[in-house]
Amino acid sequence: MNDREDQTGSGVRLEALATKLGRSFAGDGTLRLRGIASLDDAGPDDLVFVRDASHLPALANSRARVVILPDGVDAGGRATIHSPNPALDFARAVGFVAPSPRPQVGIDARAIVGPDCAIDPTASIAAGVSLGARTRVGAGTVVHSNATLYRDVTVGEQCTIHAGVVIREDCELGDRVLLQPGAVIGGDGFGYVPDETGMLHKVPQRGRVILGDDVEVGANTTVDRASLSATVLADRVKLDNLIQIGHNSEIGEDVVVAAQSGFSGSTKVGRGAIVMGQVGVAGHLEIGTRSFLGARSGITKDVPDHAIVYGSPQMEERRWHRVAAALKRLPEMVKRLRAVERQLGLRDDKPAGGGRGER
Amino acid sequence: MNDREDQTGSGVRLEALATKLGRSFAGDGTLRLRGIASLDDAGPDDLVFVRDASHLPALANSRARVVILPDGVDAGGRATIHSPNPALDFARAVGFVAPSPRPQVGIDARAIVGPDCAIDPTASIAAGVSLGARTRVGAGTVVHSNATLYRDVTVGEQCTIHAGVVIREDCELGDRVLLQPGAVIGGDGFGYVPDETGMLHKVPQRGRVILGDDVEVGANTTVDRASLSATVLADRVKLDNLIQIGHNSEIGEDVVVAAQSGFSGSTKVGRGAIVMGQVGVAGHLEIGTRSFLGARSGITKDVPDHAIVYGSPQMEERRWHRVAAALKRLPEMVKRLRAVERQLGLRDDKPAGGGRGER
Amino acid sequence: MNDREDQTGSGVRLEALATKLGRSFAGDGTLRLRGIASLDDAGPDDLVFVRDASHLPALANSRARVVILPDGVDAGGRATIHSPNPALDFARAVGFVAPSPRPQVGIDARAIVGPDCAIDPTASIAAGVSLGARTRVGAGTVVHSNATLYRDVTVGEQCTIHAGVVIREDCELGDRVLLQPGAVIGGDGFGYVPDETGMLHKVPQRGRVILGDDVEVGANTTVDRASLSATVLADRVKLDNLIQIGHNSEIGEDVVVAAQSGFSGSTKVGRGAIVMGQVGVAGHLEIGTRSFLGARSGITKDVPDHAIVYGSPQMEERRWHRVAAALKRLPEMVKRLRAVERQLGLRDDKPAGGGRGER
Repeated sequence: MNDREDQTGSGVRLEALATKLGRSFAGDGTLRLRGIASLDDAGPDDLVFVRDASHLPALANSRARVVILPDGVDAGGRATIHSPNPALDFARAVGFVAPSPRPQVGIDARAIVGPDCAIDPTASIAAGVSLGARTRVGAGTVVHSNATLYRDVTVGEQCTIHAGVVIREDCELGDRVLLQPGAVIGGDGFGYVPDETGMLHKVPQRGRVILGDDVEVGANTTVDRASLSATVLADRVKLDNLIQIGHNSEIGEDVVVAAQSGFSGSTKVGRGAIVMGQVGVAGHLEIGTRSFLGARSGITKDVPDHAIVYGSPQMEERRWHRVAAALKRLPEMVKRLRAVERQLGLRDDKPAGGGRGER
Repeated sequence: MNDREDQTGSGVRLEALATKLGRSFAGDGTLRLRGIASLDDAGPDDLVFVRDASHLPALANSRARVVILPDGVDAGGRATIHSPNPALDFARAVGFVAPSPRPQVGIDARAIVGPDCAIDPTASIAAGVSLGARTRVGAGTVVHSNATLYRDVTVGEQCTIHAGVVIREDCELGDRVLLQPGAVIGGDGFGYVPDETGMLHKVPQRGRVILGDDVEVGANTTVDRASLSATVLADRVKLDNLIQIGHNSEIGEDVVVAAQSGFSGSTKVGRGAIVMGQVGVAGHLEIGTRSFLGARSGITKDVPDHAIVYGSPQMEERRWHRVAAALKRLPEMVKRLRAVERQLGLRDDKPAGGGRGER
Repeated sequence: MNDREDQTGSGVRLEALATKLGRSFAGDGTLRLRGIASLDDAGPDDLVFVRDASHLPALANSRARVVILPDGVDAGGRATIHSPNPALDFARAVGFVAPSPRPQVGIDARAIVGPDCAIDPTASIAAGVSLGARTRVGAGTVVHSNATLYRDVTVGEQCTIHAGVVIREDCELGDRVLLQPGAVIGGDGFGYVPDETGMLHKVPQRGRVILGDDVEVGANTTVDRASLSATVLADRVKLDNLIQIGHNSEIGEDVVVAAQSGFSGSTKVGRGAIVMGQVGVAGHLEIGTRSFLGARSGITKDVPDHAIVYGSPQMEERRWHRVAAALKRLPEMVKRLRAVERQLGLRDDKPAGGGRGER
C-alpha cells in the first residue's frame, strides 16, 4: 500500500512546464501549478485545458489561472499554454505537475517472498504481496497489497501491479505494464477433449502469457495462458475492464479493446485494430490490421485489414447501417407485402390486423 | 474473517416478531423462531413465507410451524403472521430472526494499517486486510480478509466490504454500502489521446468514485474512477455482478442494474431506471428517469423518461416485439416477395429453392 | 505460493508411458520424456502429438523425438505412440510426463486459520490464505496465496483453489474441484422486494452454493449463493471465465459453458448442455438435456432436450441461419418491395433513392 509515499507538493512553474512540453506560454511564467482538475473543480493552482471554444463558458466560471488551449481561443485574461492538441498536452503535463505519489521503495517485511527471487532494489513490494519462487521484478516496479505472483514470473521495469492481481506461473511482463486491480494473467485456458464415452478430459494448459511493453490490462480482465507455447499481447495493447482473452490468442501491437469484449482461443488480431465494447470474437480467426469492430458485434469470420464491421452476424459498416434502419421498419414491410399480395389476389384476408397471425 | 463471531441462537418469539413487523399474528405467540428457510428445507424453528395460494401444496409438506402469508390463504393450522406483502415482511424479519453473525469488533493484529488512519472502534478489520494511509472507516463497518483499501479512502458506517474487494485511492463510500467479493472501485478509467504519430498517451485518471448510502455492488463488478472529478453512484443504486461502470458516469438514485451490463464513460442514468442483464450503453448518453432497458439491449441514443426500450439497435417496446416476431418470419417473407415478383414478371426463375441463391 | 515445490525432472521412459496409456509404441522405448510442448517449441525430451496428417510439415521441422499420432500417419523416423485419439492421449500423458509441481504440504505459518478448522495434513495452505471458522479442507487440496474461505466452508479432496478466489460462508465443494484465480463462490444473489413506497428491501441471501466433483470454475467467474436452499453446479460442470450464475440456478452434470455467458436466477440446465460464449439466459427457465445454445444467443424461453438454438430472440438452428442470411439482404428486399409497389401503382415516387426516407 501507499503507506509511506513521497509527498510532492511543491508543483512546477508555468515557464518550466511550457519548456518541458515544448510549447509557448503567455502570462505570468512564475505561476506555480500544483494539480490538475476539470474546469468546474479547479482551484487557482490547478492546471486545466479546453479542447475548443465550446468550453469557454465553463472556462469563464473556472477558478483556474492557467489553461492549455488551442490557438484562436480566448483565455479571458488567464495565463496560457498554446497547444495544437490541448488534451494531449494536458495528459503529458500530468507527470510534471502532479506526479503520482509512489510507495516507499523496497520489500515490505510483511510481503511473502519465495526462494531465489530477484527483486530490483528500486522496486516497491507492498505488505501482503505474495511472490513465488524465482520471481523477477524490475527497477521501479510497484506491486500493491494482496497481489499474487506465482513461481517463475518475470516483471519488467516501471510496471504497476495493482491490488488483487494474480499472475500465474511462468508468465512474463515487459516494461511499463499497468495491471488494474483484479486482473488475472495466466489462468488456465478452457479446453477439454472427450474420450470414447463422451467424458471430458482437461487439455493441458502449460503454456504462458507474454505481455509486451506498455501494455495496460483493465480491472478484472482475464488473459488465459496458452495450452502450449504462449498467449501474446504485443507492445502497447490496451485492454479495458472485464475482457476475456482466450488461450493462444495473439493480440497485435497498439490494439485497443473496450470493456466486456471477449476473444475465443487462437485468434490473431492485427496491429492497431480497435475493438469496441461487448464484442465477441470466435476462435481461430484473423482480425485485420487497423480494422474496427463496432460495439456488440459478433465476429465469426475473418476481418480484412482496415475493414469496419458491425452487427451480429457481422457486416460491413454501410450495410449494417442500412440493415439496422430496415430492421426497425420490418413490421411496416410486413404490412406492405400483405397489401401487395392482396392486390394480386395472393391472399383473401381482410386488410385489418397488426402483424400478428401472419401466415 | 468471521473467526470469532457472536453466536446468537436464542431466536425471537412469534409475538415479539409480529410486533416488530407491525403485523398481527395468530396461533401460539410463544413459539420461538431461530432461522429462515424455504418451505422444503424448513425445520420446526424456521420462519417461512408463502406469496400466494399456489404454494399451498409445498406449505402442506413443510415442517415449519410459523408462516407469513397473505390474507385469505389458509395456513393449515400453523401459526401465522398475516401480511399484505409476505415477501417484504419475510425480508424484514430476517434481521430479527437470524441476524448475520458479525466478526469480532476491532482491528486484527494481522491486518495492515497505514499511518494516520481513523478506524472507528466498533468497526471490524479482519486479518489480511490492507488499509492505506489516512483511510477512514465508520462505526460498525466490516472489512473482510484480503480486501485492499488504498490511501485516503473514506468508508461510512455499517458498511460490509467483502474479501478480495479493492478500493483505490481517494474513493468515498456512504453508509450501509455493501460490496460483494472481488468488486473493484476506482480502477483507472479507459482513455487515451493520440499524438501526431498516432501513438496513444494515457489520459490522466485522477478523479475518484463516490458511492452514496445503501449502494450495493456485485461480485467482480468494476466502477472506474473519473478522469477528473468523480464517477457517482447515488443513494440506493444496486449493481449485480460483472458490471462495468465507465469513468465519469453518474448513476441516479434507486437505479437497479442486472448482471454483465456495461456503461461507457460519461453517461447519466436517471433515478429509478431499471437496466436488465447484458445491456450495453454507449458513452455520453442520458438515460431517462424510471426508464427500462430490456435485457441485451444496445443503447446508442438517449432514452426518454419512463421509456421502455429493447433491442440492438434500441427500439420502443411495442415496436421491438413486432420486429422480433417479423424477424423470425423473414425467410417466409423472402419467399412471398419472390412469389409476388414472379407473378409480376419481375423474375423468371423457378418457384423452388430454399431462400439460398437469392439474387 | 509454490515456494518450495517438489522438483521432478527425471521424466518417464517411452515404454513406461505407453504402458500407462494402454497404447503400443514403436522405436526406442528407453527414450526419456521430460516435458510436453507444441511441435514448434519442442526440444528433444518433449512429448508432442499430431491430430492428423495436416500437421506433418510442422512435425517435420520439430525437434521432438517422440510423437503421439494416429494410425496411418508417418512419423518420419521418430519414436511413436499410436493412438486412435492423439489429443486425448496427449492430455492423459501430461500427468505422467510432466506432473504439475505442487506446493509443500501443510499449513504455512503465515496463513490465517480460524478456530475449529479441519485441514487434512496432506493439504497445502499457502501464506496469505484466510480460512474462516470451522472450514474443512480435504486430502491433497491446494489453496494458493490470498484466497479467502469464509466460515463453515467445506472443500473436498484433491481440489485446487487459486489465488484471489473467495468462497463465502457455508459453501461446499466436492472432490477435484478447480477454481481459477478470482472466482467468487457464494456472493449474495441479486434480489430486492419493494415496499409500498417503492423503496427496495434486500431479499435475504442465506442459502449457499454446492459444487459437485470435478467442477471447474474460470477466472473471475461468479456463482451466487441461493436466497434460501442452494445454487448447484453438478458433477463435472465446466465454466469458463467471467460467467455469471444467478442464485438458485441448478446446472446439470457435464454442462459446459464458455466465457462471459450469464444465467439469471432459478434456471435449470439439463445435463450435458453446451452453452457457447456471451449467451444470456433469463430466469426461471428449463434448458434441456444435451441442448446447444449458440454464441451470443439470448434465451428467454425454455429449450427442449437436444435442441440447437441460436440468435436473440432464440431460434432453432436452421431457421437462425436462414434469418441471418435474409437479414443481411434486408436493404435489397426493401428496394424490391418498392419496385413491386411501383409496378402495382401503390406508390408513385421515382425509382432512385438508397433505402432512406422510406415511408
